Amino acid sequence: MQKIISLAKRRGFVFPSSEIYGGVEALWDYGPLGSLLKNNIKNAWLDRFVQKKDNVVLIEGTVLMNPSVWKASGHLKHFTDPLIECKKCHSRFREDQLAKKECPQCGNKELTPARQFNLMFKTFLGPVEDASHVTYLRPETAQSMFTNFKNVQESMRLKVPFGIAQIGRSFRNEITTGNFTFRSREFDIAEIEYFVKPGEDEKCFDVWLEEWEKFFLGLGLKKENLRRYEHLKKSLAHYSKRTVDIEYKFPWGWAELAGVANRTDFDLSQHAKESRQDLNYFDEETGKKYIPYVIEPTLGIERLLLALLVDSYDEVKGGRTKTTKAAKEVETVLKLSKKIAPIKVAVFPLVKNKPELVKAAKQVFELLKPHFMCLYDEVDSIGRRYRRQDEIGTPFAVTCDFETLEKNDVTLRDRDTMKQERIKIEDLAEVIKNKLNVS
Amino acid sequence: MQKIISLAKRRGFVFPSSEIYGGVEALWDYGPLGSLLKNNIKNAWLDRFVQKKDNVVLIEGTVLMNPSVWKASGHLKHFTDPLIECKKCHSRFREDQLAKKECPQCGNKELTPARQFNLMFKTFLGPVEDASHVTYLRPETAQSMFTNFKNVQESMRLKVPFGIAQIGRSFRNEITTGNFTFRSREFDIAEIEYFVKPGEDEKCFDVWLEEWEKFFLGLGLKKENLRRYEHLKKSLAHYSKRTVDIEYKFPWGWAELAGVANRTDFDLSQHAKESRQDLNYFDEETGKKYIPYVIEPTLGIERLLLALLVDSYDEVKGGRTKTTKAAKEVETVLKLSKKIAPIKVAVFPLVKNKPELVKAAKQVFELLKPHFMCLYDEVDSIGRRYRRQDEIGTPFAVTCDFETLEKNDVTLRDRDTMKQERIKIEDLAEVIKNKLNVS
Repeated sequence: MQKIISLAKRRGFVFPSSEIYGGVEALWDYGPLGSLLKNNIKNAWLDRFVQKKDNVVLIEGTVLMNPSVWKASGHLKHFTDPLIECKKCHSRFREDQLAKKECPQCGNKELTPARQFNLMFKTFLGPVEDASHVTYLRPETAQSMFTNFKNVQESMRLKVPFGIAQIGRSFRNEITTGNFTFRSREFDIAEIEYFVKPGEDEKCFDVWLEEWEKFFLGLGLKKENLRRYEHLKKSLAHYSKRTVDIEYKFPWGWAELAGVANRTDFDLSQHAKESRQDLNYFDEETGKKYIPYVIEPTLGIERLLLALLVDSYDEVKGGRTKTTKAAKEVETVLKLSKKIAPIKVAVFPLVKNKPELVKAAKQVFELLKPHFMCLYDEVDSIGRRYRRQDEIGTPFAVTCDFETLEKNDVTLRDRDTMKQERIKIEDLAEVIKNKLNVS
Repeated sequence: MQKIISLAKRRGFVFPSSEIYGGVEALWDYGPLGSLLKNNIKNAWLDRFVQKKDNVVLIEGTVLMNPSVWKASGHLKHFTDPLIECKKCHSRFREDQLAKKECPQCGNKELTPARQFNLMFKTFLGPVEDASHVTYLRPETAQSMFTNFKNVQESMRLKVPFGIAQIGRSFRNEITTGNFTFRSREFDIAEIEYFVKPGEDEKCFDVWLEEWEKFFLGLGLKKENLRRYEHLKKSLAHYSKRTVDIEYKFPWGWAELAGVANRTDFDLSQHAKESRQDLNYFDEETGKKYIPYVIEPTLGIERLLLALLVDSYDEVKGGRTKTTKAAKEVETVLKLSKKIAPIKVAVFPLVKNKPELVKAAKQVFELLKPHFMCLYDEVDSIGRRYRRQDEIGTPFAVTCDFETLEKNDVTLRDRDTMKQERIKIEDLAEVIKNKLNVS
């Protein structure tokens, strides 16, 4: 895990937020490579679950909402953790996690009784800071999909079953944090609220659970590092009839990556009651009204990003390239799926002190840039440059050498096989495009 | 404007946030078409300013930061509006906007003296709500690009001049709101902090101002609806040496869409002082250290979206189609640039009561879906379906008719010319791809 954290910082995937000020616990910024990787994950999700589905539409709701939303949803009452404090050193713990920990800074065992602490960040709308102006930062994106149920269904003329999808920033004022970015106070969730006829919910649950797992496998996560965890009836959230977590085998153990919940008609019924609006769906075929059930597949984008870094991280002792020099080194390669790798192609001149090679490489760079996220590099030996790209998962490296000047072709190196083939410059974009699409 | 608002609501572009609870002032959710349009605008921006630029990299910072950031940046002190309240009806106004308004609800003229109200939303990190745990929701994304200046420059081995780009959610507790989504409390900003050598800042400013305008024109905004507004020296923000707004001619008048500011070395110097970190850039060529100047082009994504809706909205009285029936109607067409239109292709069977046409149309829909955001529609007459797509700016409509069954071709209708051509189904995806790329 330390190696991943170090790589993430050194190569521009993840930085501590406000690091020059000592950071803020559990807040992380995504650097140039991390933000591209995040975007690629989001786009893969949107492609699969919005563009390629017939009946799932996207929305983008606000973080701040009318506070009645959180009353109706049960978050004001139930979205709490039992908070315990050490009377001596004032360290804070979640009661349910205390068994696993010591009171670390002081050895004292005198603790306050647990109080229910709401994990929603609080703020005030308008200039008056009193109870009537309080609202909250959303801890998930689901609620705006429920409050917009009618707006979406009517404006898009949708028939049940249909889904509303959203990726959005969410906030939780976590008491205990840790494991790098795993438990962050600010994160992006991708979720779908899939509305079905009551009675069809259980079957639909299973379908979405499989869909979700296929998505992870399609991005390259190893099957043996994923498992299901079925929540016990007694530990289900207040809205849920059934919840299954999809866990990933992180370096510190199995932990939640994603989940599917059967939220029944809980949310729509609650909002109908609290808002006094009719949130029934009118079924044209039967002429009957009903409140749909909801199957909710959900996934933490940053957790998936972390799992992908862990899963694709590989070290080869003695060097992948088997040169004498490399024999003493440990070479790192991120075997990220080509689809989501942040940089697709790196372009190099063989050496930087030959102006004609530099010129040729820059021309190739200009040629490829409109098609792919590219990077140009001329610093250090060609071997080091390949290894620098392997370490950040760049699937292809293009090198302009002396033959390029004569024959108008370049070498195209594959990250995983390390094989190089010569490709005519005029065919290069097309060849890379095909290779990216196939894998 | 009322027509745009009505269209936006009815067709799923924009809904009031938490509408079933009466909404929240100045908070807006983006529906299925609005969220796709937003994504397309963001992707066009990322393509142009990150992928196609050699020396601009992306980051994604957190909304919540260490509160010292806002002390150093001057936001705690300066990011305020003068707030005035009517002593009778308690309506609140910005002092500088009061001249334009009456005290509307009561006619009373007795007002409180102005007090400086900070527009940053306040919240608390951790369970204790006292001054030492206060932090703020960022009102812009710029600061995380300054606090990460060193992290980004070093991890990506960048040389000045280079830029850091970000699109991110920002929050402002506005006193006065209005004009639909124009002044929202929550919005996405796209900005670039472009770091240059002091002395090169003025020239660079002009280059970015032009780049920014070209982007808007490239998305289809009409030239005559854009103008520059040069801020007077005395009204510049505390960090700025020069600011030019790019204004758009909205239905209520010219208003700020975007801007370019010369922030000098203000931010990096302030953060260096406050954090006691060395934020100098070391210039390898001259062997000298300096704090770079910063040129900041910035743009509100939702304002651009609103401008694009307004700019592309067109009504044709008497009907675009010139049929007898249409002669009495007003037909609406959103002439959005094909690049950013939310739905690219609509697929129809000529009529819905011929199963073989429905089947053919659904096959074509399945064929196109992997390539484009598509929509299938079989309800109402073909003319009405075309008009429904015109109204949301869909560039192409494909219809399967009786000839389709014999000749394996379809009609492809262009939104703007309304011309239809017959295309073989096997060529359809490629033909549409080319048409989308050319325009």
